[in-house]
Amino acid sequence: MTLRFALVMDFAARDDARTDFEGTFATIDPSASALNIADLSAQRGDGIFESIGVIDQHAQDVILHLDRLAHSAGICDLPAPNRAQWQQAVARAAEHCPPVGEAVIKLILSRGVEHGPSPTAWITASDATDFSGVRSAGVRVVTLDRGYDSGVPARAPWLLLGAKTLSYAVNMAALREARRRGADDAIFITTDDVVLEAPTASLILRAGDRFITPAPSGGILHGTTQISLFDHLRAEGYQMAYEEVSVAALYRADAAWLVSSVRLAAPITMIDDTELPVDAELTASFNRYLLSPR
Amino acid sequence: MTLRFALVMDFAARDDARTDFEGTFATIDPSASALNIADLSAQRGDGIFESIGVIDQHAQDVILHLDRLAHSAGICDLPAPNRAQWQQAVARAAEHCPPVGEAVIKLILSRGVEHGPSPTAWITASDATDFSGVRSAGVRVVTLDRGYDSGVPARAPWLLLGAKTLSYAVNMAALREARRRGADDAIFITTDDVVLEAPTASLILRAGDRFITPAPSGGILHGTTQISLFDHLRAEGYQMAYEEVSVAALYRADAAWLVSSVRLAAPITMIDDTELPVDAELTASFNRYLLSPR
Repeated sequence: MTLRFALVMDFAARDDARTDFEGTFATIDPSASALNIADLSAQRGDGIFESIGVIDQHAQDVILHLDRLAHSAGICDLPAPNRAQWQQAVARAAEHCPPVGEAVIKLILSRGVEHGPSPTAWITASDATDFSGVRSAGVRVVTLDRGYDSGVPARAPWLLLGAKTLSYAVNMAALREARRRGADDAIFITTDDVVLEAPTASLILRAGDRFITPAPSGGILHGTTQISLFDHLRAEGYQMAYEEVSVAALYRADAAWLVSSVRLAAPITMIDDTELPVDAELTASFNRYLLSPR
Repeated sequence: MTLRFALVMDFAARDDARTDFEGTFATIDPSASALNIADLSAQRGDGIFESIGVIDQHAQDVILHLDRLAHSAGICDLPAPNRAQWQQAVARAAEHCPPVGEAVIKLILSRGVEHGPSPTAWITASDATDFSGVRSAGVRVVTLDRGYDSGVPARAPWLLLGAKTLSYAVNMAALREARRRGADDAIFITTDDVVLEAPTASLILRAGDRFITPAPSGGILHGTTQISLFDHLRAEGYQMAYEEVSVAALYRADAAWLVSSVRLAAPITMIDDTELPVDAELTASFNRYLLSPR
């Protein structure tokens, strides 16, 4: 993942009424060393992030990502981001993405240097990995115990479930465990058998005529791509639902997908030892929609 | 926490037989921006760390810390660190600590820049916060649900319990929650009522003539300061034990301490709504030992 562009921002308060934040941006050489080693992002994974898909220089679902960034900031007691500032930074980053093709813009808000005066905020743009193959060939997944019961998020908000934090070591370890088991990806489940999400993607399944995603009750992220795809399905006349999904229901699904901002919709071909049917035409239509400007 | 010194290292393999690693060190201006923004420490909290106490330029318990760094690397599928290289780096950093007084040396090993060739490794030295007051006045703590049952660490190694990772956002959030509740620190407990550890410290309690610490079964870190203090207590003729500790047993303790590399031994004055007796003389003897060269 070579960075094409990077920009650091003087963090603006949410109620900063400026309309032009250009003066708060400093473009940096993306390959240069530009981060203070005492930054709490690097010292303690203490910050939040978003990864935005970009198609032909168009950043997708920006408002959904900025809503979630603000939601994560609230859970983590970070100062609320200024939406206009981040929108303008995303627009600047998008200009540096390839005119044709896919890219990724990443937003990072860290608590800053320890005992420092303010958060650290930066945005990068990079070329996207080519996921065109996996969008049709699909992924094999394994279910992995997330260690929690489904009551934990409401009971213990200090566990930051539902925030997209930089403390992502467990998510990465789960992907390594999936590969050790011969799979491509993982789906976390609770100790009481409730299906959550993948380490870097949301889950959508089809049961008959209905599309279902696990309810974002605080224990999982509310997926921006899932929200966008549900909007599309609603417009197409389908029924959607946020529900509690059991592992047994997942095995019985008529089809299922992992959806995320950059890989987009990847059909699940196998869950643990259970093969799942793949609807190639429906999957292709999902990805056509997700590749259109949103 | 002002950094006094920082050094980045070319990561050496464990079996690198060099005796002098000076050539792998590059001293950097600790206030300069020296970290690649794409480093996985900052992007995903994907790395491990140790914080070593320093007294009068003497780094304490270095071998215990390097043992734990290697243990954490194993859990996280990071390449094994070369002990001689890190020892020499710690020695270099110690030279830059104040000749008299306390300091902190921090070791960080990150997975490196994404898709990069090698891990990123660096060491910093900084002045320590003055904890002399809290070592006698003590700390009020609250118990906080860690969300896991006590069987999770053995069942789900991908949760990285027992590794000291850079994904520390939850630990920091638990400290904020403790302060919101009017306390100074927290002790994590499992959903099945087993006492674990504090977010940045180990727990030792005294029950009659015995000193007990929660068994490091994989769910908690094996505390370097706790190990060192147990060695001291053993030499003094006391009995020590690693045991499963219930919350009720914690409330009934004859005394209890949070122990860590920099704050050292802080007596617990209150747990939730239960006052604990403080043994001022014993606490002072702990801290005299912990402040002596080890």
